[in-house]
Amino acid sequence: MKVLIRKAEKKDSLVILNLIKELAIFEKEPKSVKLSLSDIENDGFGAKPLFECIVAEINKEVIGMAFYYPRYSTWNGPTIHLEDLIVSEQYRGKGVGTLLYSNFIKMALDFGVKRIEWNVLDWNSPAKNFYKKSGAKVLDEWRTVQMHQSEMKKYLKNIRND
Amino acid sequence: MKVLIRKAEKKDSLVILNLIKELAIFEKEPKSVKLSLSDIENDGFGAKPLFECIVAEINKEVIGMAFYYPRYSTWNGPTIHLEDLIVSEQYRGKGVGTLLYSNFIKMALDFGVKRIEWNVLDWNSPAKNFYKKSGAKVLDEWRTVQMHQSEMKKYLKNIRND
Repeated sequence: MKVLIRKAEKKDSLVILNLIKELAIFEKEPKSVKLSLSDIENDGFGAKPLFECIVAEINKEVIGMAFYYPRYSTWNGPTIHLEDLIVSEQYRGKGVGTLLYSNFIKMALDFGVKRIEWNVLDWNSPAKNFYKKSGAKVLDEWRTVQMHQSEMKKYLKNIRND
Repeated sequence: MKVLIRKAEKKDSLVILNLIKELAIFEKEPKSVKLSLSDIENDGFGAKPLFECIVAEINKEVIGMAFYYPRYSTWNGPTIHLEDLIVSEQYRGKGVGTLLYSNFIKMALDFGVKRIEWNVLDWNSPAKNFYKKSGAKVLDEWRTVQMHQSEMKKYLKNIRND
């Protein structure tokens, strides 16, 4: 099985969206994906891209991707965040994920960042073990906090009424 | 006590660095800050800024800041990440942190993002309670994973030798 790794292009937008949806199902959040095809096309492949992808291709079919964008650490400076690493279900267990992961790491090193980072579900032990074995650290002390638009509006309304 | 909130400028770079260092001490990682003054000047206030800050000023002295940059969610599209929210120790407990927080949220809403996010130390209960009370969600299921440059190099070297 010959796997080709390459940078994603605009023509890959639909398969990128489908991989995002497939990962959301695995993460038990199938309804959380609010992005449309044109969001992917415009945000990823417009004049000012907000993310990049590398994709894995078998027989000219994209079957996996690493989706990432730059971040900034107040300790280390520029970093790259790996938002999604996904291989389509029927192609799992064949080393494609590892190939995407190592290509992502190589790309980040070439780019010159001092750190890469991503998130993992605490119950996803196979993923956690894979990352740890590769030399990454799972930060057990830190938690992610999120606030959505509706809560942001509600919060500002409440403090105005205080 | 009159507090002025404004966007940071290049002239604020030193006080930004000092606030970053003060936060790192609070987080029990005083030696983790590798950034220099020129990193802050170039990365924040050069031709292509990698982050932005809003600062809190009392009597023309900057005593706190919110440090943030854009991210991208494969579920929600563009988001803003609050990397550091810090008020200098002697000015804590006076509502300056809340003022920076609400100004950050207002700025993010004006910018049009559907979500904001940040990290919190699991043992920092006052911060967690403050965020929850404001309407944010602490995601207990997710963990942050990080890999530094030396481990990235080691990983690539090992797989090449496999």
